[in-house]
Amino acid sequence: MAQKPSIPKGTRDFSPEEVAKRNYIFETIQSEFKRFGFQPIETPSFENSSTLMGKYGDEGDRLIFKILNSGDFLKKADEKALQEKDSTGLTSSISEKALRYDLTVPFARYVVQHQNEIEFPFKRYQIQPVWRADRPQKGRFREFYQCDADVVGSNSLWQEVEFVQLYDSVFNKLGLEGVTIKINNRKVLSGFAEVIEEQDKLIDFTVALDKLDKIGEEGVKKEMREKGISEEALEKIQPIFNLSGSFAEKIEGLRSILEGSENGQKGIEELQFIQNAIEEMPLKTAKLDLDVTLARGLNYYTGAIFEVGAPEKVKMGSIGGGGRYDDLTGIFGLKNMSGIGISFGLDRIYLVLEELGLFPETVTQNTKVLFINFGDKEALYAMKAVRKLRAENVTAELYPDSAKMGKQMKYADKRNIPFTVLAGEEEMQDGKFTLKHMKSGEQSSLDLEGLKEKLQN
Amino acid sequence: MAQKPSIPKGTRDFSPEEVAKRNYIFETIQSEFKRFGFQPIETPSFENSSTLMGKYGDEGDRLIFKILNSGDFLKKADEKALQEKDSTGLTSSISEKALRYDLTVPFARYVVQHQNEIEFPFKRYQIQPVWRADRPQKGRFREFYQCDADVVGSNSLWQEVEFVQLYDSVFNKLGLEGVTIKINNRKVLSGFAEVIEEQDKLIDFTVALDKLDKIGEEGVKKEMREKGISEEALEKIQPIFNLSGSFAEKIEGLRSILEGSENGQKGIEELQFIQNAIEEMPLKTAKLDLDVTLARGLNYYTGAIFEVGAPEKVKMGSIGGGGRYDDLTGIFGLKNMSGIGISFGLDRIYLVLEELGLFPETVTQNTKVLFINFGDKEALYAMKAVRKLRAENVTAELYPDSAKMGKQMKYADKRNIPFTVLAGEEEMQDGKFTLKHMKSGEQSSLDLEGLKEKLQN
Repeated sequence: MAQKPSIPKGTRDFSPEEVAKRNYIFETIQSEFKRFGFQPIETPSFENSSTLMGKYGDEGDRLIFKILNSGDFLKKADEKALQEKDSTGLTSSISEKALRYDLTVPFARYVVQHQNEIEFPFKRYQIQPVWRADRPQKGRFREFYQCDADVVGSNSLWQEVEFVQLYDSVFNKLGLEGVTIKINNRKVLSGFAEVIEEQDKLIDFTVALDKLDKIGEEGVKKEMREKGISEEALEKIQPIFNLSGSFAEKIEGLRSILEGSENGQKGIEELQFIQNAIEEMPLKTAKLDLDVTLARGLNYYTGAIFEVGAPEKVKMGSIGGGGRYDDLTGIFGLKNMSGIGISFGLDRIYLVLEELGLFPETVTQNTKVLFINFGDKEALYAMKAVRKLRAENVTAELYPDSAKMGKQMKYADKRNIPFTVLAGEEEMQDGKFTLKHMKSGEQSSLDLEGLKEKLQN
Repeated sequence: MAQKPSIPKGTRDFSPEEVAKRNYIFETIQSEFKRFGFQPIETPSFENSSTLMGKYGDEGDRLIFKILNSGDFLKKADEKALQEKDSTGLTSSISEKALRYDLTVPFARYVVQHQNEIEFPFKRYQIQPVWRADRPQKGRFREFYQCDADVVGSNSLWQEVEFVQLYDSVFNKLGLEGVTIKINNRKVLSGFAEVIEEQDKLIDFTVALDKLDKIGEEGVKKEMREKGISEEALEKIQPIFNLSGSFAEKIEGLRSILEGSENGQKGIEELQFIQNAIEEMPLKTAKLDLDVTLARGLNYYTGAIFEVGAPEKVKMGSIGGGGRYDDLTGIFGLKNMSGIGISFGLDRIYLVLEELGLFPETVTQNTKVLFINFGDKEALYAMKAVRKLRAENVTAELYPDSAKMGKQMKYADKRNIPFTVLAGEEEMQDGKFTLKHMKSGEQSSLDLEGLKEKLQN
């Protein structure tokens, strides 16, 4: 019995049109990465489990796809876990490999493993799929691409400036206006916790603050109270909620809030440096904004934190993010290697461009002209022309079978092929081709040269 | 304790240089696929196990990487298999998904699943990685890319002609001379078995014949004898071993060998059609050759069989292959859908181009100019120039830290960056830049316009 075919939930097939559109985004990002001096690397789809496990927290460990050992895997299975039917305990004895969960940990592994071949600072980009056993839902998939650019081996704040410029360049090239590049600094967040003397509640504090645009000021305060942050502390940070105005104005506000914190002042200095540089070299399309509620991946960012917001008119949330992490490679034994990186959210960018009609028409154009097939003799005549046209970079095809004319025309139509060529006995005798413009129905009789000229435009 | 990082055996990290070279091959193949009217699709990295299992024989089933179910997978585990420690029996109850083993079966699944959205004949290409739990050895990996182009839904022999032209075009674009496109036809092989009245031994017969270039005529005959093929039969097929000369001469030889086989004659006709068309539209670089020993994937090819041999001066074996299969989608319930396809062996093509020094130098060029960093004030001056150069498509970078000059110069040198720019206080005052050609040491003082002009070439 034939099986009814399907694909695993959370995964996708991509049609020619979708691949073309996705590739347009990939190629735009990639060409900007290159222009900024980033170099590509690729890592294997699966890593040794020991490389990945324990790097993303318990929840992450659970969401990593594990690959079953080949052959008689039960031979080495943990006897006790087997008897107790302890799935978690059994896993490491029957699975040595796992699909990568992101590009950051494999990148850190790559840097440490190849440190002797690399010139630091190392500017690399990587565009590859990752896999997560997440519950599939709208816009969340079990297989999706990440597009990352990182620099390791430099503390320079010029990197932060570069990444802001890079975000701006990519979205400008994609024709996407109204993007906001939000920036914050981990040291500012630490500073907040310092001035309210709640350093030990830094995570709870920032997790709550990060929700400001979702649950509002009162919601944030409620959550903070629940986490044991005092009324006195809440009063002290009230000015955070009142920060507004331009980047420079917010910086001024921060200065007074963080007066007592050396850490906080350092964070302000860093933000100021970036802001000054961007003022000297204005962005093309995007807007840089200071957002002190931004926390993202707090556990590993140590300096700048970035998040890119889609244009307000589309409800999409963040379409990119990143930040500086001072010790990424430490987990693999290479210390003191500061890194900073950003990521582009392909799937969301795709949806935004689709919604705003920003994919150029040329992206999905494929075959320019279909030669109608009237039989083997005519087909040879056509194929010779097809060959010449292809040599001139015109995508041309012969309909493979001498099917009924209507069927062949319908095929051209369905595939959005703009021109057809009819060349029967008569045309062959004259060395001509009848070119038909599918939309207008207009026909013209041309020789090969004329055909080339017409179709190259 | 930090882990010593490594990757699973049979997998690879790709350095910037390797990625650049691989992408050069991918992009060349892809641009020819497009020029010939093929459209890209992509399928998920993992499929439902039921889609893949049983499609590649027992050996294939064994080599498919299975993904462990998430969560408490032992809950649904087959009790009996668990108690008997029967790994094979247990697998299907703890693993529902598997990494794709090739692109052909997922393509067949795609065609059947999306048949109502597809215009047939459907010309698709697909360039994605596949995974096999093969024993890793030189040139054989557990993760590797396949580059496939197929057409489904047409019996026309013009497709065979197109694929020969496509192979020729790609290798011509890659500058690879001396490639041989070997062709055979399954019907010719069946014909052989018919004329020696050993139809039931077709597989044994062709498997032995396929080894001719490895074990020689006597070796082949020895193997055939061992498989029970009679002396009388061997005598009858003796002319196969004596076939030589041009394509046309071999065809003539075949005609007399296959005189008694209708099937065989049909095969000859097909070969003749292709040969005639190629004679009318000669290949650019490659040579078309008839090789009646070619069997490849006999179980599923029904007409043409292709194999591409690397130039003789490099010992590499086949760098591509394919053929016609009359019922690929039948396994998923869609009958009478003839297909034909070819594949490019990326890893071997890479090795061949490397050995022959055929990668263009431009492929691995990245950053064109590095601006030396003399401190924040100078860096801002440099960054402004960097930005202008990038806008003119010149890949420019600022060294991120104001490190010692020697260190920065060494960095440019190691990364093969051909130019550096030195711009200190003096240059800033004059609005100039000192451009240094790294190889010659030559220096010139230029304004921004001059810099642009010089670096755009």
